[in-house]
Amino acid sequence: MKKLVNKIEDVMHESLEGLVACHSDLLELDPEYRFVARKSRHPTKVALISGGGSGHEPLHAGFVGQGMLDAACPGQVFTSPTPDQMVAAAQRVGSQQGVLFIVKNYEGDKMNFAMGAEMCEVPVATVVTNDDVAVQDSTYTTGRRGIAGTLVVEKIVGAAAERGAGLTELAALGELVNASTRSMGVALTSCTVPAVGTPTFDLGETEIEMGVGIHGEPGRRRVALMSADAIVEELLDAIVTDLAPRPGRPLLLFVNGFGGTPQMELYLVFQSAQRSLHKRGLTVARSLVGSYVTSLDMAGCSITLTALDDQMMALWDAPVRTPALRWGV
Amino acid sequence: MKKLVNKIEDVMHESLEGLVACHSDLLELDPEYRFVARKSRHPTKVALISGGGSGHEPLHAGFVGQGMLDAACPGQVFTSPTPDQMVAAAQRVGSQQGVLFIVKNYEGDKMNFAMGAEMCEVPVATVVTNDDVAVQDSTYTTGRRGIAGTLVVEKIVGAAAERGAGLTELAALGELVNASTRSMGVALTSCTVPAVGTPTFDLGETEIEMGVGIHGEPGRRRVALMSADAIVEELLDAIVTDLAPRPGRPLLLFVNGFGGTPQMELYLVFQSAQRSLHKRGLTVARSLVGSYVTSLDMAGCSITLTALDDQMMALWDAPVRTPALRWGV
Repeated sequence: MKKLVNKIEDVMHESLEGLVACHSDLLELDPEYRFVARKSRHPTKVALISGGGSGHEPLHAGFVGQGMLDAACPGQVFTSPTPDQMVAAAQRVGSQQGVLFIVKNYEGDKMNFAMGAEMCEVPVATVVTNDDVAVQDSTYTTGRRGIAGTLVVEKIVGAAAERGAGLTELAALGELVNASTRSMGVALTSCTVPAVGTPTFDLGETEIEMGVGIHGEPGRRRVALMSADAIVEELLDAIVTDLAPRPGRPLLLFVNGFGGTPQMELYLVFQSAQRSLHKRGLTVARSLVGSYVTSLDMAGCSITLTALDDQMMALWDAPVRTPALRWGV
Repeated sequence: MKKLVNKIEDVMHESLEGLVACHSDLLELDPEYRFVARKSRHPTKVALISGGGSGHEPLHAGFVGQGMLDAACPGQVFTSPTPDQMVAAAQRVGSQQGVLFIVKNYEGDKMNFAMGAEMCEVPVATVVTNDDVAVQDSTYTTGRRGIAGTLVVEKIVGAAAERGAGLTELAALGELVNASTRSMGVALTSCTVPAVGTPTFDLGETEIEMGVGIHGEPGRRRVALMSADAIVEELLDAIVTDLAPRPGRPLLLFVNGFGGTPQMELYLVFQSAQRSLHKRGLTVARSLVGSYVTSLDMAGCSITLTALDDQMMALWDAPVRTPALRWGV
């Protein structure tokens, strides 16, 4: 394993310190590393808190800032944060308007955020994301996994919170965005967890894993390497069948890199996906390309589609100022 | 070789189409793929044009937009663009105020941009970047290579052009920024050029290449994997010795990923570098972390330092709106 690290046990802390030092205008770090918080907060707005295992950067700490999250609770690599982290974050950024937890559908995350919610002194609602159409159950999940679509939920709900929406309304909006969003990914290589030091799974020189999870969990099938167009067709077939957007409904197309994939390939995949959607009579109204919800150094990508309505589109377009997403401000 | 591509000969075109489709508010693509141009241009401003081989994305096309480049001319992967591309780009975006070429110091690029300059009908000046302190001459270069510091030149000079500076002034500013900037990189893995299909160089399971070039050219030495802190020390020793910034001079610290390195590691390197600079009595006033000047799928990073003055700092902070860099607008 070759990685740019010092002691394995310091990877998460040192990386968080770098993130917050680099973006000290936007972020502050809890001295015990329990959360990364937004520096300038509205005292009366509903606070959005997310979190999960590290190794998916910039998710979630890179999405803390104006128009998105108020805090993110990082666990060790691919490990859930603990309930005391959510409680500490809620104490720091929460208001009497309440706190919304946005949680990817993994057993550990769900359980720990639920325990955290019980321990909070302010009202808490929770949205669980489960946008991955690849498989029904998986290594760490009952039901569908929450993957890159989580970014879309955090962006759209974050914009609504910034505009002053209440807790119940935000929770309903989060459910709506999640229900309007589907994703599926493909791995060309495994990732390597620093503390393990060897690849999470083995993939042959000419094999790919269709439907891989963001921790290297198994997908639908392992097949021989195909062209980008053929991969995109298979991902979109699964996503579009499941989402079933009516023709004319504006779509957000989000091509997400897993960490080890160069941008040149991601834009090539975007071009292929947009062309395929056009052939299917579907309209790409908004787009995003980049490595936003990653799996350490895994090569590969996921495609996410969200069927937008006018409100979701306006909230997607609303200003956002975070380390990883920034527009309109 | 596993990559998300279709036919090898279509990689550059399909990727450029994806970039421009995703950022159609900012960019337009020449139908013959000779350049990517900024969509909304000032008719009276000096036009900034850069370019070079593909495989370094987002450099250069991802830096086309408000406050940075007016056009970028892409060559095939790691291959110089041809003079007709610069001429066509200058015809599209040039004004009577002239055109500034920003060129990384590689023989092919320099020669072709020089030929392009001779063929242009508007006044042309050229800035050649050579920020890499690793080696004096290299595979494709006489003198020092131009690497990630090129971004800093494009950003600062781009902001000055946006404010209406003239061609002579911009060329002088570009020379000043380049002279104030030093970089050095390290590779943990090789890159693989799609048309070749095998790694550009061989690196053992526990070896790294200190001072690697952005096409996989040899660096200073090949050594056993070290801690991130030790790697940072060696890179900064070389950079700081060569730049010799006086204490108190504000520095821009830019940690650049080569394409296959996860963000988690880049922020860890940033934290290490900032700490080391502080110990050296030096002050980080501005910072940037991300994969901006890449080498396809190479794992590794480079560190860039620019010794800023008040003017450079104000121009660095000025609004920029491009696919890859965006702030203040």
